[in-house]
Amino acid sequence: MRRWILALAVSMLPLGAAAQDAAKPTRVVVQVSEADPARWNLVLNNVKNLQDDLGADKVSVEIVAYGPGIGMLKFDAPTNSRVSELVKAGVTIDACENTMRNQKLARADMHPNVSYVPAGVVQIVKRQQEGWAYLRP
Amino acid sequence: MRRWILALAVSMLPLGAAAQDAAKPTRVVVQVSEADPARWNLVLNNVKNLQDDLGADKVSVEIVAYGPGIGMLKFDAPTNSRVSELVKAGVTIDACENTMRNQKLARADMHPNVSYVPAGVVQIVKRQQEGWAYLRP
Amino acid sequence: MRRWILALAVSMLPLGAAAQDAAKPTRVVVQVSEADPARWNLVLNNVKNLQDDLGADKVSVEIVAYGPGIGMLKFDAPTNSRVSELVKAGVTIDACENTMRNQKLARADMHPNVSYVPAGVVQIVKRQQEGWAYLRP
Repeated sequence: MRRWILALAVSMLPLGAAAQDAAKPTRVVVQVSEADPARWNLVLNNVKNLQDDLGADKVSVEIVAYGPGIGMLKFDAPTNSRVSELVKAGVTIDACENTMRNQKLARADMHPNVSYVPAGVVQIVKRQQEGWAYLRP
Repeated sequence: MRRWILALAVSMLPLGAAAQDAAKPTRVVVQVSEADPARWNLVLNNVKNLQDDLGADKVSVEIVAYGPGIGMLKFDAPTNSRVSELVKAGVTIDACENTMRNQKLARADMHPNVSYVPAGVVQIVKRQQEGWAYLRP
Repeated sequence: MRRWILALAVSMLPLGAAAQDAAKPTRVVVQVSEADPARWNLVLNNVKNLQDDLGADKVSVEIVAYGPGIGMLKFDAPTNSRVSELVKAGVTIDACENTMRNQKLARADMHPNVSYVPAGVVQIVKRQQEGWAYLRP
């Protein structure tokens, strides 16, 4: 009996861990904090590559724009059609409301398909603590 | 008896994990590796937002300045009063001693409230391996 | 008997976790995504410091160059001898084949000692999900 219990206890730990790993989808939070449109295009290319290479249904991507990066999500940004495409492809794109307040931006000034988070930096940290990978292109 | 043991073993794994998660405070290591004072202000804003939004007692923040970022911690940096405020608010701010040696900086050249680490990059990696989130504004 | 089983079950969880932590080597994936040679030198300094401070045999480092950062791995880059030294010291240095295709670069255009990955950004995310720390100098 003792031997049976020991075998049970030992075998459960690695099995439990392995099952969790296999089920874990790839999740990535991507930061945009620069004012440079060339960098915005790099971000959008990176996210497209993640979806193309891993399969859009096997990766969750959340882009968070804050500080000087908020410009990527304004309604007149040069990257607008690419932002629309990614949202359509299932990517969440967050605008930081702290930054919007500081830069006196209203929701009417923003791309119509973005989501909103109270603080971009808190969202990025929260996602990492939940196990998401972090990408800062 | 067997059934009781099985129930015990199964129930302990998720409970243990959940308890650990709940107890885990938010911890963030923040990198400063650029010479640009606008970037330094973004870093300092980000840390202030983390404290304001999560509560200063619920988040541990460590800022690590190295390479071209060391300038933020010189005694005559334009961001000095903000660095003082954050240290007073419980943030650890580290200067990289490798960088200081390369740039011939002595402790007398630095902001009086900073801490020192032998290698900034090692500190950033160490914190991540301990489970801290990473922020590179 | 019940008490013995309970003690066994309780003691195994933390012991298992502790043993895993002790065995875990330091592993770092380092991103190069800027076209600036000063930034390339910072990356190469950072990796050298990681090896010097932790011991080259106690840290695994993988550098991934993509987007505008691919320039660091061209055969005529100013940082070439430093790239050679790091590969000799055991560092893996990856060129992104997606980027090479976009920039019409062939393997003949690249540093002879680099490795190749289909998508730099996927490699960076994959490493993080495997538990590697992430450094974006």
